[in-house]
Amino acid sequence: MPETLIKVDLKDSPYNNPLVHNRWHPDIPMACWVNPGDDFVLETYDWTGGYIQNNDSADDVRDVDLTTVHFLSGPVGVKGAEPGDLLVVDLLDIGAKADSLWGFNGFFSKNNGGGFLTEHFPHAQKSIWDFNGMFTKSRHIPGVEFAGLIHPGLIGCLPDQKMLDMWNEREVDFIATQPDRVPPLANPPFAKTAHSGKATGEVKDKIAAEGARTVPPREHGGNCDIKDLSRGSKIFFPVYVEGAGLSVGDLHFSQGDGEITFCGAIEMAGWVHMRVQLIKGGMAKYGIKNPIFKPSPITPNYKDYLIFEGISVDEQGKQHYLDVHVAYRQACLNAIEYLKKFGYTGAQAYSILGTAPVQGHISGVVDIPNACATLWLPTEIFEFDINPTAAGPVKMLDGSIDMPISYDPK
Amino acid sequence: MPETLIKVDLKDSPYNNPLVHNRWHPDIPMACWVNPGDDFVLETYDWTGGYIQNNDSADDVRDVDLTTVHFLSGPVGVKGAEPGDLLVVDLLDIGAKADSLWGFNGFFSKNNGGGFLTEHFPHAQKSIWDFNGMFTKSRHIPGVEFAGLIHPGLIGCLPDQKMLDMWNEREVDFIATQPDRVPPLANPPFAKTAHSGKATGEVKDKIAAEGARTVPPREHGGNCDIKDLSRGSKIFFPVYVEGAGLSVGDLHFSQGDGEITFCGAIEMAGWVHMRVQLIKGGMAKYGIKNPIFKPSPITPNYKDYLIFEGISVDEQGKQHYLDVHVAYRQACLNAIEYLKKFGYTGAQAYSILGTAPVQGHISGVVDIPNACATLWLPTEIFEFDINPTAAGPVKMLDGSIDMPISYDPK
Amino acid sequence: MPETLIKVDLKDSPYNNPLVHNRWHPDIPMACWVNPGDDFVLETYDWTGGYIQNNDSADDVRDVDLTTVHFLSGPVGVKGAEPGDLLVVDLLDIGAKADSLWGFNGFFSKNNGGGFLTEHFPHAQKSIWDFNGMFTKSRHIPGVEFAGLIHPGLIGCLPDQKMLDMWNEREVDFIATQPDRVPPLANPPFAKTAHSGKATGEVKDKIAAEGARTVPPREHGGNCDIKDLSRGSKIFFPVYVEGAGLSVGDLHFSQGDGEITFCGAIEMAGWVHMRVQLIKGGMAKYGIKNPIFKPSPITPNYKDYLIFEGISVDEQGKQHYLDVHVAYRQACLNAIEYLKKFGYTGAQAYSILGTAPVQGHISGVVDIPNACATLWLPTEIFEFDINPTAAGPVKMLDGSIDMPISYDPK
Amino acid sequence: MPETLIKVDLKDSPYNNPLVHNRWHPDIPMACWVNPGDDFVLETYDWTGGYIQNNDSADDVRDVDLTTVHFLSGPVGVKGAEPGDLLVVDLLDIGAKADSLWGFNGFFSKNNGGGFLTEHFPHAQKSIWDFNGMFTKSRHIPGVEFAGLIHPGLIGCLPDQKMLDMWNEREVDFIATQPDRVPPLANPPFAKTAHSGKATGEVKDKIAAEGARTVPPREHGGNCDIKDLSRGSKIFFPVYVEGAGLSVGDLHFSQGDGEITFCGAIEMAGWVHMRVQLIKGGMAKYGIKNPIFKPSPITPNYKDYLIFEGISVDEQGKQHYLDVHVAYRQACLNAIEYLKKFGYTGAQAYSILGTAPVQGHISGVVDIPNACATLWLPTEIFEFDINPTAAGPVKMLDGSIDMPISYDPK
Repeated sequence: MPETLIKVDLKDSPYNNPLVHNRWHPDIPMACWVNPGDDFVLETYDWTGGYIQNNDSADDVRDVDLTTVHFLSGPVGVKGAEPGDLLVVDLLDIGAKADSLWGFNGFFSKNNGGGFLTEHFPHAQKSIWDFNGMFTKSRHIPGVEFAGLIHPGLIGCLPDQKMLDMWNEREVDFIATQPDRVPPLANPPFAKTAHSGKATGEVKDKIAAEGARTVPPREHGGNCDIKDLSRGSKIFFPVYVEGAGLSVGDLHFSQGDGEITFCGAIEMAGWVHMRVQLIKGGMAKYGIKNPIFKPSPITPNYKDYLIFEGISVDEQGKQHYLDVHVAYRQACLNAIEYLKKFGYTGAQAYSILGTAPVQGHISGVVDIPNACATLWLPTEIFEFDINPTAAGPVKMLDGSIDMPISYDPK
Repeated sequence: MPETLIKVDLKDSPYNNPLVHNRWHPDIPMACWVNPGDDFVLETYDWTGGYIQNNDSADDVRDVDLTTVHFLSGPVGVKGAEPGDLLVVDLLDIGAKADSLWGFNGFFSKNNGGGFLTEHFPHAQKSIWDFNGMFTKSRHIPGVEFAGLIHPGLIGCLPDQKMLDMWNEREVDFIATQPDRVPPLANPPFAKTAHSGKATGEVKDKIAAEGARTVPPREHGGNCDIKDLSRGSKIFFPVYVEGAGLSVGDLHFSQGDGEITFCGAIEMAGWVHMRVQLIKGGMAKYGIKNPIFKPSPITPNYKDYLIFEGISVDEQGKQHYLDVHVAYRQACLNAIEYLKKFGYTGAQAYSILGTAPVQGHISGVVDIPNACATLWLPTEIFEFDINPTAAGPVKMLDGSIDMPISYDPK
Repeated sequence: MPETLIKVDLKDSPYNNPLVHNRWHPDIPMACWVNPGDDFVLETYDWTGGYIQNNDSADDVRDVDLTTVHFLSGPVGVKGAEPGDLLVVDLLDIGAKADSLWGFNGFFSKNNGGGFLTEHFPHAQKSIWDFNGMFTKSRHIPGVEFAGLIHPGLIGCLPDQKMLDMWNEREVDFIATQPDRVPPLANPPFAKTAHSGKATGEVKDKIAAEGARTVPPREHGGNCDIKDLSRGSKIFFPVYVEGAGLSVGDLHFSQGDGEITFCGAIEMAGWVHMRVQLIKGGMAKYGIKNPIFKPSPITPNYKDYLIFEGISVDEQGKQHYLDVHVAYRQACLNAIEYLKKFGYTGAQAYSILGTAPVQGHISGVVDIPNACATLWLPTEIFEFDINPTAAGPVKMLDGSIDMPISYDPK
Repeated sequence: MPETLIKVDLKDSPYNNPLVHNRWHPDIPMACWVNPGDDFVLETYDWTGGYIQNNDSADDVRDVDLTTVHFLSGPVGVKGAEPGDLLVVDLLDIGAKADSLWGFNGFFSKNNGGGFLTEHFPHAQKSIWDFNGMFTKSRHIPGVEFAGLIHPGLIGCLPDQKMLDMWNEREVDFIATQPDRVPPLANPPFAKTAHSGKATGEVKDKIAAEGARTVPPREHGGNCDIKDLSRGSKIFFPVYVEGAGLSVGDLHFSQGDGEITFCGAIEMAGWVHMRVQLIKGGMAKYGIKNPIFKPSPITPNYKDYLIFEGISVDEQGKQHYLDVHVAYRQACLNAIEYLKKFGYTGAQAYSILGTAPVQGHISGVVDIPNACATLWLPTEIFEFDINPTAAGPVKMLDGSIDMPISYDPK
């Protein structure tokens, strides 16, 4: 029986839990220590620390304070880990908390975070997904049920001061290029809502003032939102500080490539069972800058895909140069248009692409001026046949059920 | 025994073959006609029409005239096809020509086309790949052998005049934004090297003057370079002109996602056996703008991947906004650095990523400011173990073999 | 949160639990009732009801009273189910009890049950397997770790009296053909150790006297020991009595095709989360005699197999007529011989074949006089390379660790 | 371009081709020689040497002389191969002859060979399958099309005299136990129709008199009819004679596990492209008795199976002891009954099970007295949905098309 080193109480605020933090900083004290070879369990809040509720209103998605995210469990110190090592993490299993067998997916208001298709879906919307064993379905999106590709959206080791400084400089400079953009280009440190774990006094203040926000993935991994970093996978993390300082959170029951809905995948509170080992000096031995990983032998094995293409000409017909972001957006919009023919609303289709184990491939990236991206939609997750036929699509849904929407106050 | 409707003679110039063309234009005469339900074979040149040779010099890669590509077989008219239909194409099989059981991969000089990593590999280089049944290996890149994920890099139907005009306007305007860029942003029509198929006289001149270049993928599909459009897959193409006008070429024995080497995948001359059917009015019925497709039930089934992450901070440390192109470039560079630890030269590693069935995933595309892309490298294609271990990598290659390189003339 | 309809206390005897039974009989009272569409959880004992312990002695395997098995949870009554229906069961998830994260595998003494290779391994032996999240390994068998293909060895609905009578007649007659055989040909009803669930008085006595033993799979399914009936699969069971009466037990963390070690797979106590539905009149509609099922979308995805052939000539060189049992035995013995070259003892190799997700295929069954069976051993479960090479095998184990053995008393 | 070392002329009798033989004997002269590391092509007849025709009569299946089969191409001598070595064979590719893009499947008359279900299908029947690229379908069995899992039914090395003598003794003794059985238990040497390759004079007579018939799989491999020995797989064959003497034939475009129809899979004439290497002394190094192999990375990847169970109680209700042959027969009969509900005749359903990439698993083989076997039917090969639903099956076929049948003469 593995030991649960960090517990979270979903009824209590994460700010009251000293084994949780929401910024990246080398001075965050280790929440606990383990030895190489140990396996152990960490419980985690959902990324918003419990702000989003299991109900039929999107007000919470509209109103959430995004300066508070992500609440991470850790950092876990690994004895003997030194800068330059690789920390090898086996994700032995991941699950939802037994008293919280549900998750949420949503779109932020364009004025509060937005998302990949925020120009098309500018208002806050939410869908709730119930977990039935290894499967999930939503009362807001009929006709679809699938097995969870459970994974942590966010996992990685503490940066050292030099890397932290580089991050902050790089991003603050970047924000300065368009300081008034909505949504913003990036998020600077923000002391008011920082949670510095066990730190106290001046150290706490320093972390709050300098701590990097957790939203972007960076060199150490972090919020990569890689759906394939699923339970059963093995990850090799760069180590920057003594003890490594591994933190994890933002668990997803399932997600499509890109996490296009931003809020987010199917977000949940839960636990991670992991085992850690070290490759001494591994960063130099293998020339590692970013984490590398090996996928799990046990993941949902959907195989019959319908694949949508997109090219880097945007919705207004404007040409972009080998821009995979634009190309993938077109592929997503093409898939949404297709699903609408079966009766889904645009919002429901968008949510399916954000939650189901959809693949996004960088198909061609050299054929000037157009990149080509493909979106792979597994057909087996639908309770009806979505393949094209000579007879044309059958409208399976009557539109009576949709996702809750909450408009910004005027 | 299916009929071979178009034959090509690899010893003769494609310009002498009236069933071949190298531009997109609605006025290109149909090379032949078939009925819905028919299956048939089309032979094709390699994309350069035979310019690149099976030898140990990269001079041809350096010197190739890219205004001549791609040489396509077709267009095939399908009786009864009308604008707005979907043309359903089953790729029943694809193969190399029996007298040409080899292919090439290369990097163009930065001054003649470049490629995804042209800043890192600015000179012309080439590797030759021999086909051994369903497998391939290269005398220029030891230690790697894999099964071919054979596919056409380029396939699609003729545009109508309206779509053609839109393409030309969009791209010519785009070129005008940086007219002197090397490599260029895009390629405008170019009459001198146009091949207009069977067309003669004024029609031929019109096609040459207006015909869209074949390099970029566009709304009709075209040069998508999607490795998963492999033999056994089923594609649904939008139809824009009476008879559809299906053309195909640029066959690849294998390719990694992105076709990052540009010149190109493992390029070959060969043949395509296909079957065509129609979904009348299918574009409106299914809301189709770009082609959609279903993958093949029979493709190389590599499963043990080593996955590299990249984020949208470039090699110089500069921050880009959710730029998947930049993120994928970092993932590729990370993989190259890793493979060099086993003794590969950078060029060999780059060529492996361009030719093997590597996957490129758009993993996260909303976590401002960083996109996250992943490159999936199948470990089973190597003759030795490339997984990270506590002992560190073993140098398997002594550097005595490398890819030919040809420098630009001063 | 699904309701747990049946709980088991691993510290208490299963005979004290009225929601458990160990015989098949139509008169066993329903333990509880559900509606079609419901999902719920049943806890189960391991098949021996807790007799086998997590220790390093095989005495319990040697001494277990096989008339007591299998302890099943149920029967669950499904409202509206009638004879002739199909009961559709979704296995939403399966797991070990949180206080019992281990399982056992063993070989019975030839004098107490035996097994597939009892002539070669006539003595009681045992291995204990620890569960680490989705993975397992054994302190008695070094060098192997794999993901669990978790499944119930035994699941099915109550027979009606007519079917029960047929079973008893068929098997008792069969025993009579070799009444003194060791191990026996089959097992007749045996009142003394019968557990009739909630039944009392005369009904209880009738069940004890007539109740069919649970070891063999039969028309209703029952102890099929099909490893692919794993969590995520969907099963269609014939219904013979009002309310169906679904019972389940004999959970396996993992098993190879054939469950060749008999005692058994990796046996565990645990829980099953399932959902039930009905196809009214489904037996006649689909011509169903035995259950049918669809495999799970989420199972361990080992792919790199080493495959051993066996033909129906036995170890003594004797010819058998298209006998797949003999052929599979040869394939198993061939695999054991192979694994011994890497340092495994025969017992360890036998246990690996019984526990890991090994496939057994009926490859050829018409080429007189020899059947051909194949055993598929996944190479990825080993911590070292077991593929044949020109250099020959490397002995990875020094023989210092072996499975406990307990000899029969003289 | 690999060299074609053995060519066959489908218009000429195989008896006229000295590079072909139809018996196993150490004295058959090598047809040709190769070096380790070489790759080359061998053409082959279909197993009957062209007797079965592409027409709509089953007379040829009824009348074929089974003493003539199988016509094998070889033996190929490998320089340096010695008894005790392992011959490593890479099946680089396999295909049908370009002038023979079709295959046959049939059931023999019970009086001329029979088959797995000969009691149920006692008369000669035939279906013809057309090859469309990588796919096949039959004009005699509507509604089904699938990708070919192409493989040689028969491949192996020459036995030495000692092994040959053992085979003959074992089988002749066995026949003697039921000499008048129809179909027979096994087939003894039969000189009249023997084809001894290049042998002449006394050697030829000796081979004819002693040569083992090719029907059964034996220690050397031979007629294993393992569908997974498909193109792309790698096989390790025991070597018994100087030069190994590798022969191949009986090519199958596709086959279900068991090759239950006996005549046979989808039988075809074609070619095999292979590469050979040696592991010196490999038999002892790895404890090899029968061949072992590794499956191909590129095979049809059907995944959505409907799985039928069978137990070792036969059609008459008779109990058999852990008899997998009987259990698999029940699973097959259950699947046939199921398919009949969709409109297939029993013969068509039987033929589908014999030809499609159906899996047969040995699921449980220790639960006395019943073995449990499962038949895995891929649902994706059907043009309509064969899954069970609450609504019941829809009859998709009207019975107007069936397989030709030819009755035995009275």
